[in-house]
Amino acid sequence: MGAISGQQYIDRINQLNPEIWADGKRISGLLSEHPLFKGLILSKAALYDLQHNPKIKDELTFPSPISGDAVGLSFLAPKTKEDLLKRRKMIEHWATHTHGIMGRSPDYLNTVLMSFASSADYLKGKEKSFPENLIRLYETAREKDLTFTHTFITPQVNRSQLHLENGESPIAARVIAENEQGIVIKGARLLATQGGLTDEVLVFSIGKFIFNEEEAFAFSIPSNTKGLKFICRDSFIGGESDFDHPLSSSYEEMDSIVVFDNVLVPWERVFFYNNGDVAEEFLEKCSFHAFAKHQVLIRQIVKTEFILGLTELLIKTINVREYQHIQEKMSEIIIGLETLRALLEKSENHASLDEWGNMRPDVLPLKVAGNLFSKIYPRFIEIMQLIGASGMITLPTEQSFHSPIRKDLDQYLQSATKPAYDRVKIFRLAWDLSMSAFGTRQTQYERYFFGDPIRLSSDLYLSYPVNEYVSKVNHFLKL
Amino acid sequence: MGAISGQQYIDRINQLNPEIWADGKRISGLLSEHPLFKGLILSKAALYDLQHNPKIKDELTFPSPISGDAVGLSFLAPKTKEDLLKRRKMIEHWATHTHGIMGRSPDYLNTVLMSFASSADYLKGKEKSFPENLIRLYETAREKDLTFTHTFITPQVNRSQLHLENGESPIAARVIAENEQGIVIKGARLLATQGGLTDEVLVFSIGKFIFNEEEAFAFSIPSNTKGLKFICRDSFIGGESDFDHPLSSSYEEMDSIVVFDNVLVPWERVFFYNNGDVAEEFLEKCSFHAFAKHQVLIRQIVKTEFILGLTELLIKTINVREYQHIQEKMSEIIIGLETLRALLEKSENHASLDEWGNMRPDVLPLKVAGNLFSKIYPRFIEIMQLIGASGMITLPTEQSFHSPIRKDLDQYLQSATKPAYDRVKIFRLAWDLSMSAFGTRQTQYERYFFGDPIRLSSDLYLSYPVNEYVSKVNHFLKL
Amino acid sequence: MGAISGQQYIDRINQLNPEIWADGKRISGLLSEHPLFKGLILSKAALYDLQHNPKIKDELTFPSPISGDAVGLSFLAPKTKEDLLKRRKMIEHWATHTHGIMGRSPDYLNTVLMSFASSADYLKGKEKSFPENLIRLYETAREKDLTFTHTFITPQVNRSQLHLENGESPIAARVIAENEQGIVIKGARLLATQGGLTDEVLVFSIGKFIFNEEEAFAFSIPSNTKGLKFICRDSFIGGESDFDHPLSSSYEEMDSIVVFDNVLVPWERVFFYNNGDVAEEFLEKCSFHAFAKHQVLIRQIVKTEFILGLTELLIKTINVREYQHIQEKMSEIIIGLETLRALLEKSENHASLDEWGNMRPDVLPLKVAGNLFSKIYPRFIEIMQLIGASGMITLPTEQSFHSPIRKDLDQYLQSATKPAYDRVKIFRLAWDLSMSAFGTRQTQYERYFFGDPIRLSSDLYLSYPVNEYVSKVNHFLKL
Amino acid sequence: MGAISGQQYIDRINQLNPEIWADGKRISGLLSEHPLFKGLILSKAALYDLQHNPKIKDELTFPSPISGDAVGLSFLAPKTKEDLLKRRKMIEHWATHTHGIMGRSPDYLNTVLMSFASSADYLKGKEKSFPENLIRLYETAREKDLTFTHTFITPQVNRSQLHLENGESPIAARVIAENEQGIVIKGARLLATQGGLTDEVLVFSIGKFIFNEEEAFAFSIPSNTKGLKFICRDSFIGGESDFDHPLSSSYEEMDSIVVFDNVLVPWERVFFYNNGDVAEEFLEKCSFHAFAKHQVLIRQIVKTEFILGLTELLIKTINVREYQHIQEKMSEIIIGLETLRALLEKSENHASLDEWGNMRPDVLPLKVAGNLFSKIYPRFIEIMQLIGASGMITLPTEQSFHSPIRKDLDQYLQSATKPAYDRVKIFRLAWDLSMSAFGTRQTQYERYFFGDPIRLSSDLYLSYPVNEYVSKVNHFLKL
Repeated sequence: MGAISGQQYIDRINQLNPEIWADGKRISGLLSEHPLFKGLILSKAALYDLQHNPKIKDELTFPSPISGDAVGLSFLAPKTKEDLLKRRKMIEHWATHTHGIMGRSPDYLNTVLMSFASSADYLKGKEKSFPENLIRLYETAREKDLTFTHTFITPQVNRSQLHLENGESPIAARVIAENEQGIVIKGARLLATQGGLTDEVLVFSIGKFIFNEEEAFAFSIPSNTKGLKFICRDSFIGGESDFDHPLSSSYEEMDSIVVFDNVLVPWERVFFYNNGDVAEEFLEKCSFHAFAKHQVLIRQIVKTEFILGLTELLIKTINVREYQHIQEKMSEIIIGLETLRALLEKSENHASLDEWGNMRPDVLPLKVAGNLFSKIYPRFIEIMQLIGASGMITLPTEQSFHSPIRKDLDQYLQSATKPAYDRVKIFRLAWDLSMSAFGTRQTQYERYFFGDPIRLSSDLYLSYPVNEYVSKVNHFLKL
Repeated sequence: MGAISGQQYIDRINQLNPEIWADGKRISGLLSEHPLFKGLILSKAALYDLQHNPKIKDELTFPSPISGDAVGLSFLAPKTKEDLLKRRKMIEHWATHTHGIMGRSPDYLNTVLMSFASSADYLKGKEKSFPENLIRLYETAREKDLTFTHTFITPQVNRSQLHLENGESPIAARVIAENEQGIVIKGARLLATQGGLTDEVLVFSIGKFIFNEEEAFAFSIPSNTKGLKFICRDSFIGGESDFDHPLSSSYEEMDSIVVFDNVLVPWERVFFYNNGDVAEEFLEKCSFHAFAKHQVLIRQIVKTEFILGLTELLIKTINVREYQHIQEKMSEIIIGLETLRALLEKSENHASLDEWGNMRPDVLPLKVAGNLFSKIYPRFIEIMQLIGASGMITLPTEQSFHSPIRKDLDQYLQSATKPAYDRVKIFRLAWDLSMSAFGTRQTQYERYFFGDPIRLSSDLYLSYPVNEYVSKVNHFLKL
Repeated sequence: MGAISGQQYIDRINQLNPEIWADGKRISGLLSEHPLFKGLILSKAALYDLQHNPKIKDELTFPSPISGDAVGLSFLAPKTKEDLLKRRKMIEHWATHTHGIMGRSPDYLNTVLMSFASSADYLKGKEKSFPENLIRLYETAREKDLTFTHTFITPQVNRSQLHLENGESPIAARVIAENEQGIVIKGARLLATQGGLTDEVLVFSIGKFIFNEEEAFAFSIPSNTKGLKFICRDSFIGGESDFDHPLSSSYEEMDSIVVFDNVLVPWERVFFYNNGDVAEEFLEKCSFHAFAKHQVLIRQIVKTEFILGLTELLIKTINVREYQHIQEKMSEIIIGLETLRALLEKSENHASLDEWGNMRPDVLPLKVAGNLFSKIYPRFIEIMQLIGASGMITLPTEQSFHSPIRKDLDQYLQSATKPAYDRVKIFRLAWDLSMSAFGTRQTQYERYFFGDPIRLSSDLYLSYPVNEYVSKVNHFLKL
Repeated sequence: MGAISGQQYIDRINQLNPEIWADGKRISGLLSEHPLFKGLILSKAALYDLQHNPKIKDELTFPSPISGDAVGLSFLAPKTKEDLLKRRKMIEHWATHTHGIMGRSPDYLNTVLMSFASSADYLKGKEKSFPENLIRLYETAREKDLTFTHTFITPQVNRSQLHLENGESPIAARVIAENEQGIVIKGARLLATQGGLTDEVLVFSIGKFIFNEEEAFAFSIPSNTKGLKFICRDSFIGGESDFDHPLSSSYEEMDSIVVFDNVLVPWERVFFYNNGDVAEEFLEKCSFHAFAKHQVLIRQIVKTEFILGLTELLIKTINVREYQHIQEKMSEIIIGLETLRALLEKSENHASLDEWGNMRPDVLPLKVAGNLFSKIYPRFIEIMQLIGASGMITLPTEQSFHSPIRKDLDQYLQSATKPAYDRVKIFRLAWDLSMSAFGTRQTQYERYFFGDPIRLSSDLYLSYPVNEYVSKVNHFLKL
């Protein structure tokens, strides 16, 4: 089978019929035709079609070691630097097609799964751990081009440092029973982006948040598993017009809470369970951070390029390139972009084989980039607002241009260099990226992509080899 | 007649039938029942009703010097510091009722009109100027409690310093003819908030932007004047539910472009025309800056209180009060709030009689506050996002709580201190203020309230008496 | 006796002969002629002489309630708002004379002593407390115009939250014995500015830092008390030329470590001892924070005026007023200055009588100002560096102007508006305030005046009445 | 001859006897024994000795293509990426030896000269240009290991955009005559660091600042040329003790104004003159920016490592590693360091041959790094001050430790982890880098290394290929 087309993806999703709730109603009918999901599904379908575009097919697929079929290159566990650069190219293609806007594009999740599976040997011989299940799932996913979402985080009930959940009924999902068929999960997980819109849900526990062994597990199950519910947040689609809502009409990915209502996870789907040590250590040792951060950084670079281009387009439209404060703001974006690129390149140049033979990019520059982006992305958005100024607000809709007042709009909304229609189109895009509910969710999403920025800062410092620099100072001071 | 009630306001607006275009359609039917406007109109009606609330009626009205009727206190031209403090109290009442969210509340526009009219003597004897018309309009407005919008700014075609409009057909509204009945205006003006939803439109030219004498005029005309069109931007109402959209459902004020399609402004409505010198100097000399900035600062203080309360509510809900970085962020809001209050008080303490006998607040502390708020408001909003974190995103709708999944929500979205329903309600309010299209428009609006912040900074410096401090340094240096 | 003259001050200090160590040597000879101290002592003497300047004598003194002699107004415990405004005026005189540069000017310390003494009733009936000693000291100080330093802080050995000192030999000064004559103190205190250069040292314990009851005490002793040693830090005097070092030549106050080498504090000098509760509570309840912060804020305003004047002088000298980024930076200083003034005025307007009948300024605006200044002062200094640019560096000395190369300097260092000599003089002043060792110590001093800024932020938030704002939001949300 | 030793350098400098003025006196005697210069000269001598250190000699020299002697590798015009990496290694050695503190280390100036000479072909056939002189000077310098300073900037008389110098007597150095022997220069140049302490002065005009052709020239002359004067700024040496002044005692480089008092520059020393077009274009086309920025960035990375090590040492000394705000500040330094490294690596990876066959590092990442460092270096210094807090101030001198009060210091200044002596030594180093007059000059120097940061931002933006990103957005919008 191998790499699927957009239509194959749509057909498979439409047959799934998972339990999704939105605005108080259970979703029914074809997902690809539902107003809440069709924009995203079409955008993802276009991504899958890229795999069959003769011009770039070879850059997006590789021959399956099992079947020889062309399978998605995001599944490739790189063994050489060339492999890594192939991965970069492939990720750039996916990201460019969506301008870096789609966070949970298939290549991201395939990368996550690959990173876990290519480190599966870690699980060998560990208690309550089943590496073979993880490898089998990965191979199945690769051969069938399965789509995934993941959920790592438990509900945000109480963020105090001293809090311990101790209610009788679980809030955070946990193993409440095990039997011959598998383990039984009850409780919830937070923020599965595209939850319910993928073949499978990958569920992993992240060690540091675990206080109960029962919350320490990893598995993958189909989205339509019995007892599995996806509860959507409010939609951020502004409308169907791609003039009015150029981004939200196509890229609203939806986030949902995942409820496990006594969900049976069959044994062959379990990677490990009830093992806090493994949950904590696996995430540290496996290549997840290296490969996931590599994919994310490439996407963020493409997104930054998009922001740079769009901001420059605003500048040209209203002719403000001459102002020094505009120049300084633009230089901030350029510095950000070039910095991200340099960090990416360094992570690739310094890639090295891990203990399981995979060519991991150096994770340090990627961590630095992750820290940085959580701060500079919101600033880029602010810069866009500051350059667009009041022009970001008084924007009529597409329908206005198809009405008797068109000639008024043409006359009064023209800009220095653009007709009114184009000017409004450009500013609406800037608005949708920086000021719509869709856009602000993007900001929050990038800010928290890898967790609380405050904690990321601490982690960076506490894991950094500062002592070698201390030694030099001590040497200078003869201490 | 005097101060009107909410119902009187609604009735009058409903009879107006101005030419408003939204989303390509001419608005028809009762404005107060139109989905785009009813929330705002009801909110404004509630404000007018305050004037008849026996508990505070005396703080919101004063006896008309003409009729003796109770008229709106926002029309009062203060002659003493007591008058000024009465005005503060009155503005606080209006602002508190809307949490500082409504920018163009009636007291703001009444204040603007009062500030112009109480400086009308300036226009005496000036060419093409008619102070008596301004005074008459003011008195009519006061006695009938007319509602206004205003428009000061010309379209943003080209923001280069060197740009001069030289097309044949006007873009910026200008006088294209004068005849026995009055002057004829053609062209457009930008950003009339609540445009079309008020009895009258106050049109003033602001001197510095004028390159043509024909663009230098001031008048007021009814919203339903022939040839006058209001073209709405896209609406930022998220929906009717005040659980889901607690702010936009009630406070979306709409902004519109005002088109003058050969509009005849009768002579008795003209305050001045074709006089660039007057346009420039009147704004400098009249009490507009002092009184308008006084009203705005009071509203912004109330809004900051609302932000402080709401942010603290987020903190309590998820129990993060113990974190030092949270404490530091909250101290930023507190410092902002206390600073604004101190500046307000100083402007009142240092009020003085102007040449026309009006007790003007000192404008310097108000300018400082205006500069400051354009920078700290966006930071407050950012702080709210940083404290709410990912919890700002995954928010189900009200309907979800009235559906079979309610018990899941109750269990999985509960917070440290609140049931799920309350927690979601609180976070939706924070989202609506900081991340919805309505909220981001608020941010942009506060940022640009008195114009480009960069220019405000320059103005503050260039008008500040720095030389007295230079002298002291010269003295110290014996120069 | 009453308010002393500069000469009286000098004579008294010269007779004192305290044990001061600087650069490894015990200081001997007349302090007023010692290169390390003479600049400061002359500057202080000039301040004392102000009290006899007929033009302002009445604004600097008041008749002693005991002797009727004119005594320093900084000793006045204000009973009315008029008293408070008199204090403001007096502080302005002192601060203006030294441009706000001298942090431990006599009015500061007199204010501190007055604030303790006017709250002495608090100590009545408390264990191991002797309010009568405090009042007696205050009266003596007032009648004799004694000069003071104070020391509140214990040595910075270990700043971890969990640290407890447990060595055998005390580091932080503590009571190691008591006998018929008094209590015996051994250990050290940190950072007595002007330590050894004043009649007395006021020693207070600040509650929150106390882990041992033996560290909880308060007293005042003469600087030449047996066993009392002052160990100076390195001097920041750049040289004697007031062209080259206009500030450090006159205002270097020196900071010293105070060592108590079994110092006997006579009973009549002890205010309280071995009482942690009193140490903690007295500081909270007494008027120290209100009056000290009032004095400090007035000084900081004068200093900000000096910075504003000097920065403008740089701008005029090199003719950069036209640049928007320069204008924006200057507006930052102006906003800071006006904000501080407004906060000061608010604290005075809202002054109220405390339980002991003293008219205390409202402490909240003063706390806000203190928080703010610790952040904006370093920014002001940075602005000065950014405006002065490379011109801050290449500055020849005064001697260069009295040498054969004078004509080269005159030609090549002239500025747009100033001869070379004046230009260098102006830039050297800017350098001495912002870049010399003296200047950077000033920055650090203002940054930490009232303690760690991070802790100040937390304190502000944790003591602020946020709940009333939460209530309004709850009301709006019907929670 | 080739690479010299420290002693050879000292001997040569001592024979030079240039006209240097400091503090109003003409310097006489051996420069290497003069208090103002001996620290620097010894530090430079140690750098030259590195070239003879058998362990690293091969990394610091290469065989002269003329003589075969080992000559300094900083003179190597790289032809391959391997050459470029050799240059990196060599620069790291020099920088590490001085912790990145010495800005005008010989490798910097050799690099500058190499970059000009290796682009000398540009001058071929240009009017009033003599490329052969430039090449000859370079070869002489390489073979004799000559030391240089340079001066590019004209005096800062008036920074207004509209200023034109029009006095009769020149301020900026210019050609006032030419004759058979050469050209005659009168006027001044600014800020020659180490001016008078080098064999030669390299004088270049930078195009954009030129309004008169007579100011457009380039040449090199010996420091003891007749009529050439160096006027020193005030010295920033704090003293001779390397405990008290660990940096300024060794690394104070001095800056001086260079006066040309009718200096005759022989024709064989002139590279070009009276040619504004060449002055402007040569700097753009030659490899100066690429190679100079490459050297500078490597040095700045080494300096950042030193800052990181020193700051960590402060943290360890007072035991504050546990505080989140400390962790966040340290992460800022780490992010800065890693970013600079990544940009350096990228510039090397993307190096390419220029039209004259030299392997130039890619200048864009270097420009980005230059922009960045001018902002982050001052922040690093601020972080050091914030972490050191009041402990940066109360620092006794070395002599204090060799005196009777040593035991007091030992007891009361001990830290959590260090004896008092070491603690004071560490803090004095932090003080000397961040707060002494030497340290603040370093800050200003790094901030302005490549010119006004505001202008650097504009240059970066205005030279950046933004249009390719605009095209992508236009494509997305179908414009």
